[in-house]
Amino acid sequence: MAKEREKVTENENPDMIIGRNAVSEALSSGRPIDSLLVTRGAKNGSLGRIVSQCRERGIVVKEVDGKKLDAMCSGGNHQGVIMFAAAHEYSGIDDMFELARSRGEEPFIVILDELEDPRNLGAIVRTAEAAGAHGVIIPKRRSASLSFSVAKTAAGALEYVPVAKVANLPGTIDELKKKGLWIYGADMNGTCWCQQDYNGPIGLVIGSEGNGIGRLVREKCDFIVSLPMKGHINSLNASVAAGILMYEISRQRSGIKGK
Amino acid sequence: MAKEREKVTENENPDMIIGRNAVSEALSSGRPIDSLLVTRGAKNGSLGRIVSQCRERGIVVKEVDGKKLDAMCSGGNHQGVIMFAAAHEYSGIDDMFELARSRGEEPFIVILDELEDPRNLGAIVRTAEAAGAHGVIIPKRRSASLSFSVAKTAAGALEYVPVAKVANLPGTIDELKKKGLWIYGADMNGTCWCQQDYNGPIGLVIGSEGNGIGRLVREKCDFIVSLPMKGHINSLNASVAAGILMYEISRQRSGIKGK
Repeated sequence: MAKEREKVTENENPDMIIGRNAVSEALSSGRPIDSLLVTRGAKNGSLGRIVSQCRERGIVVKEVDGKKLDAMCSGGNHQGVIMFAAAHEYSGIDDMFELARSRGEEPFIVILDELEDPRNLGAIVRTAEAAGAHGVIIPKRRSASLSFSVAKTAAGALEYVPVAKVANLPGTIDELKKKGLWIYGADMNGTCWCQQDYNGPIGLVIGSEGNGIGRLVREKCDFIVSLPMKGHINSLNASVAAGILMYEISRQRSGIKGK
Repeated sequence: MAKEREKVTENENPDMIIGRNAVSEALSSGRPIDSLLVTRGAKNGSLGRIVSQCRERGIVVKEVDGKKLDAMCSGGNHQGVIMFAAAHEYSGIDDMFELARSRGEEPFIVILDELEDPRNLGAIVRTAEAAGAHGVIIPKRRSASLSFSVAKTAAGALEYVPVAKVANLPGTIDELKKKGLWIYGADMNGTCWCQQDYNGPIGLVIGSEGNGIGRLVREKCDFIVSLPMKGHINSLNASVAAGILMYEISRQRSGIKGK
């Protein structure tokens, strides 16, 4: 079984850690952890200890059916538990403010509202690094997280851009506003992206691939900015839209004059 | 065998047509075809007829080892031939000029130098449509082509943006220049992207994911434009970079004033 487990872990999903012993070892090793999947109702014995250790460390714990675990590890002996490693440690929001302060800049934070595609998350972290943003905030649930495919698409940028995972995105935006940030949401029917002033401390909200920005988050935005669509289709790929907006923000804040 | 072939074709790769009969049928049906893979040296009989029909229609024909074909269709009975369907018909470059003329606009054409990732190609076609470009040119070889995964990422934009496939990209750029286009290449150490004037008939060249713009193509560029990298990494995802540049081009040509 150990051999089969290893095969599954290495070949099919490098982020997946399967079975009680492997999961306990990963927890003690201190390596970055993304989330834990556990069979519904498992509260006792070694499984219970694993769950409470995860909860203490703020790791997302999801209770699922045993059949879902079976399917995820293609018959490997999961013993009721699968853990997903993260490709990089998460940061706190304070780290982003500290990074801005250390560079003598006003904070520029990117907020992603339930982006599900790891390649979009990776490309956005990569662009955020190049555009001089101080951090990227993602929600704990219904979002791509720092998996190894995100790390690959980010092309090294995870080493330089703090990424924070928060339980409640609207609540976090309220905190950012208290700290002086103006919040700009990318959505339809807003100000043309290049006619908005992005100086000062700002947060840029990008919505999910399918649904855009959720209602609760949209209501928190101080401004809505839009990219004109000159053809028939009505939206861009999320990482492309984020890139266009980040580079306009970066241009204005660097004092580069356009044509 | 027919059953197995069907399974492979439908589940594993919707673009793949396997075996002499299926390939001949696809050729007669007039459906869009991307390319043909055939065992090295196959010149006679039905295989020879398939190859010459493809050559007449300008379809890329690649000779490969039988073992490669075996591996590609996981043991399906390929009979020495695999064809890739295209998700959409290719256009000619004249269609792009015609589209620009019909809109009363100066031509704006995007040229992709050996982009290999279907998702980048799809996202670029999608952005090109939204930014009002009149077409996308890709090379016949060493490039992603109009597969179904490109169509999916393009989110419908293939219906509106002509995509042309050319045998010789530097030669095509020479033709475009003769027709009055100025060629802008995206690369390092050029003019800051937003300080360049993009009015008039233009071509925008985007380089491949790993290597950027090839030397022969770069020498054809009239201008090199660059995106400033404010952090440690030295390039962006190709579709993000293309998006930032296309939207700056679109902004200037629409006469939208920036901040």
